[in-house]
Amino acid sequence: MTRFLKKKGCIIDKLNGEKMKERIKIFDTTLRDGEQSPGASLNVFEKLEIARQLAKLNVDIIEAGFPVSSPGQFEAVQRIADESDKIIAGLARAKEIDIKTAYEALRNGKNPRIHTFSSTSDFHIMGKFADSKYGATLAEKRSTIIKMSYDAVSYAKTFLNDVEFSAEDAGRTDTGYLCDVIEAAIEAGAMTINIPDTTGYTLPHEFGAKIAEIKKRVKNINKAVISIHCHNDLGLAVANSLAGIENGARQVECTINGIGERAGNASLEEIVMTLNVRKDACNYYTGIKVDELYNSSRMVSGFTGIIVQPNKAIVGENAFAHESGIHQDGMLKDKSTYEIMNPESVGVKKTKIVLGRHSGRHGLKSRLEELGYHLPEDKIQKVYDLFLELADKKKEVFDDDLRILMGDEIYKKKELFELEYLNITSGTETIPTATVRIKTGDKTFKESSIGDGPVDASFNAIERALGFKPALESYNVRSVTSGRQAMGEAIVRIRDGENSFSGRGVSTDIIEASAKAYLQAINQLYLFNHTALVFENDNLVIK
Amino acid sequence: MTRFLKKKGCIIDKLNGEKMKERIKIFDTTLRDGEQSPGASLNVFEKLEIARQLAKLNVDIIEAGFPVSSPGQFEAVQRIADESDKIIAGLARAKEIDIKTAYEALRNGKNPRIHTFSSTSDFHIMGKFADSKYGATLAEKRSTIIKMSYDAVSYAKTFLNDVEFSAEDAGRTDTGYLCDVIEAAIEAGAMTINIPDTTGYTLPHEFGAKIAEIKKRVKNINKAVISIHCHNDLGLAVANSLAGIENGARQVECTINGIGERAGNASLEEIVMTLNVRKDACNYYTGIKVDELYNSSRMVSGFTGIIVQPNKAIVGENAFAHESGIHQDGMLKDKSTYEIMNPESVGVKKTKIVLGRHSGRHGLKSRLEELGYHLPEDKIQKVYDLFLELADKKKEVFDDDLRILMGDEIYKKKELFELEYLNITSGTETIPTATVRIKTGDKTFKESSIGDGPVDASFNAIERALGFKPALESYNVRSVTSGRQAMGEAIVRIRDGENSFSGRGVSTDIIEASAKAYLQAINQLYLFNHTALVFENDNLVIK
Repeated sequence: MTRFLKKKGCIIDKLNGEKMKERIKIFDTTLRDGEQSPGASLNVFEKLEIARQLAKLNVDIIEAGFPVSSPGQFEAVQRIADESDKIIAGLARAKEIDIKTAYEALRNGKNPRIHTFSSTSDFHIMGKFADSKYGATLAEKRSTIIKMSYDAVSYAKTFLNDVEFSAEDAGRTDTGYLCDVIEAAIEAGAMTINIPDTTGYTLPHEFGAKIAEIKKRVKNINKAVISIHCHNDLGLAVANSLAGIENGARQVECTINGIGERAGNASLEEIVMTLNVRKDACNYYTGIKVDELYNSSRMVSGFTGIIVQPNKAIVGENAFAHESGIHQDGMLKDKSTYEIMNPESVGVKKTKIVLGRHSGRHGLKSRLEELGYHLPEDKIQKVYDLFLELADKKKEVFDDDLRILMGDEIYKKKELFELEYLNITSGTETIPTATVRIKTGDKTFKESSIGDGPVDASFNAIERALGFKPALESYNVRSVTSGRQAMGEAIVRIRDGENSFSGRGVSTDIIEASAKAYLQAINQLYLFNHTALVFENDNLVIK
Repeated sequence: MTRFLKKKGCIIDKLNGEKMKERIKIFDTTLRDGEQSPGASLNVFEKLEIARQLAKLNVDIIEAGFPVSSPGQFEAVQRIADESDKIIAGLARAKEIDIKTAYEALRNGKNPRIHTFSSTSDFHIMGKFADSKYGATLAEKRSTIIKMSYDAVSYAKTFLNDVEFSAEDAGRTDTGYLCDVIEAAIEAGAMTINIPDTTGYTLPHEFGAKIAEIKKRVKNINKAVISIHCHNDLGLAVANSLAGIENGARQVECTINGIGERAGNASLEEIVMTLNVRKDACNYYTGIKVDELYNSSRMVSGFTGIIVQPNKAIVGENAFAHESGIHQDGMLKDKSTYEIMNPESVGVKKTKIVLGRHSGRHGLKSRLEELGYHLPEDKIQKVYDLFLELADKKKEVFDDDLRILMGDEIYKKKELFELEYLNITSGTETIPTATVRIKTGDKTFKESSIGDGPVDASFNAIERALGFKPALESYNVRSVTSGRQAMGEAIVRIRDGENSFSGRGVSTDIIEASAKAYLQAINQLYLFNHTALVFENDNLVIK
């Protein structure tokens, strides 16, 4: 007999009158591991918006960043912790400076968590702890790491209670040694123990067996929640996460759209929807509001500039599209023929709501809020003006246009250089020529240049105007909304020594978008060279 | 004791001196299920090139298409079968017309296979066989389908020996009934039995158990190879495929980049590399030449226009990129810290080979061949001229530029309309204006128009010139190669009643690429309206 009871928005099932479904905590690391995706750097405002959307999606824990790594990371963690009711985690290596800085960022939050970690696989130990100060032999280095882990957790506990410990590269760590590290971390007070498959190496049955063995062998394991964190290098991150849950994990670390280092992390939407669609076969549930999955996906893709491939499960453009005649025919007869979930259930809207220049301020604001964007009172007029300008060009303004409007125009950083004027002539028999006027403070620079195409010409003109020629690392452009007056988005990355900077520009004119993106990347480079994080006499100072 | 023996390029392992590794056949369905991805339509030349690359990759079976569905499908299957040494499969519903047409397409091939299928899940039976002519009750309909399956295989066997049978939606089919269908199909002579998880519904342990049960319960199962075909709706296609192999499947159906209906099929590269990277834990191997994976991925993405997201496992742009300071630091110390496979092993080249205007005809041809493209003698001069034109614009010509050159310029269909001239003026304070001259036969049309951006203006001018305004379904643009003179690719889809047509254009000038793409889509629409497939007196005629 199966009974369904609705309770506080979560479904609690009694299966066969015996086994209660267990809740899995969703630990979202889009803002930390996800932001480590090459080219994904987010500014503070974008991170705040994503954190708000994650709260709306009802994740349990938001990992907001790695505070010691940069002033921007610190500020983002601090502002998210200050604002959010969710558990906010800050990452810290097993070092006092990291832990203290994480605490500084989190201290005013309602539910702060310090997430500290050590490397535990032999690969990592021999690679990262080669120095003899960590011990002469592998055995000695291993002991050092147990002590470092214990000390790190103990130190974090002097600041707050909610401490999570991760054993980096646990997937490739000898399970016996891993159990010793975990036991020490729990003894020091870690309340969550995370088992990351950092390199995406394990197979589902191996990863499941590892979790089962940890649960069996670690004496004090009942004092902590087991967490898992899987990477997707072999395409198995979601299956490994499910195997982990099946074997005792009750927290899953994952990201929206599966973004993250290399091939990314386990995709939040795939894990959540597997447990949801297959609730007949899974004894677990999450608190996720699944109809916010699509909005979350679009927001993260829009802000990070990381595209979601059309064939991405759950949130890809084609995830619910049926192409072949046979499939289309089947779908007309009965949807369940080829559809195991309803697109609307994950928040894909069937009817496109279109705004136009006659939509009022209020209509715009409420549509933006439905899409997950928060519009501060002092920004309404600015956004509305931009909206009217766009409506003049596009006639029909779709949700995606609004998402881009919010991404591009509202939350961008202070610009040192502003593109005031751009003119382009180009064509099959014309030498592409660009003219620009750039404003910085009360100065303006004007220049023109030819180029190999209109984009090249405009970049050349910008370089001449500023007398500065950075190394161009990559240039990408795509259309982000539909229709011929589609908004084009350009992303430019430039390099200055060891650091790279990206800029994004959006316009119905692709060339203009490109020039704006290039200029924004140059802005980022300038701003970076004038900012530094310093820890002075126990106080954190941003210069 | 582990001994490794090299034999004909495949590694045969003797594990513990006992168990021989088993070979898994790779059945690539990029050209059939993959091409069913919305927007992926490939022309015959593109399919031939992909089939050649799949042969180079050394897949075991190439499913080349669904011959009865269109004249283009028929022609592609026929030409691939005529040319290739591989097993070439053609899809056919359990209908005589389908099977006969598939045979017509395959008949001159060296290793033809007819792949026929019936629907077996109750969802499909009640949805697609609702008509009472198939039986009044579910039980009667089920019997009808067993008979249809038996008859279809028997009919296919009258043409050739290598017949594969699929039980559509087997993932949601009652296993007992499924076993009955399979037994009948094998009795009729099916040599391969495919178990598709058509809707991507199953969990790995369920799918594995289903294969194990089929192997156990179907009496004549030893007379056939068990095949699996998994979809990725929940992100589990690769894990399900591995579970299928573990439980007795010896053929895997998959696609390059995991493209296919909805969220796509199991990704060939992820399955193959899991078996390869984890050969320590897997008792199976494939014949795939893994260093051709990257070339294959790029070719398929280039021809289909379906982008691969940066965080896609194995072949994504970031799959081997290390972003965070910690990871970069670890990688410098020892690559194995964060890398479980070498990018070079899957064919990602470390050193970019750059061609320029001083590269000769021979250098260009051999580079193209390394990238998997075949250059017919009569096309060499054309390609070389295009290459020189590009080298003039770009100075450094990268592999990706060559890929695009091949995709765009060489294999495109006969064009009715050609863009002879385009001129654009645009900018922040300029009303975007385009002028075009279009040639068709010996006529030329000239027109100009303003627009909301330079792309809109050029589309308007084309429409005015041709006196024809199709419904624009989508417009996408992206840069496909690196550098500021990047080649931009535009894809335009237009709709005419029930049919949609796409066009692709490539240029260092994004506006020109867009105009070319629009014109190509219009070309496709015109060509379509003058082609039809007719089956006359046992002969297939393309009109």
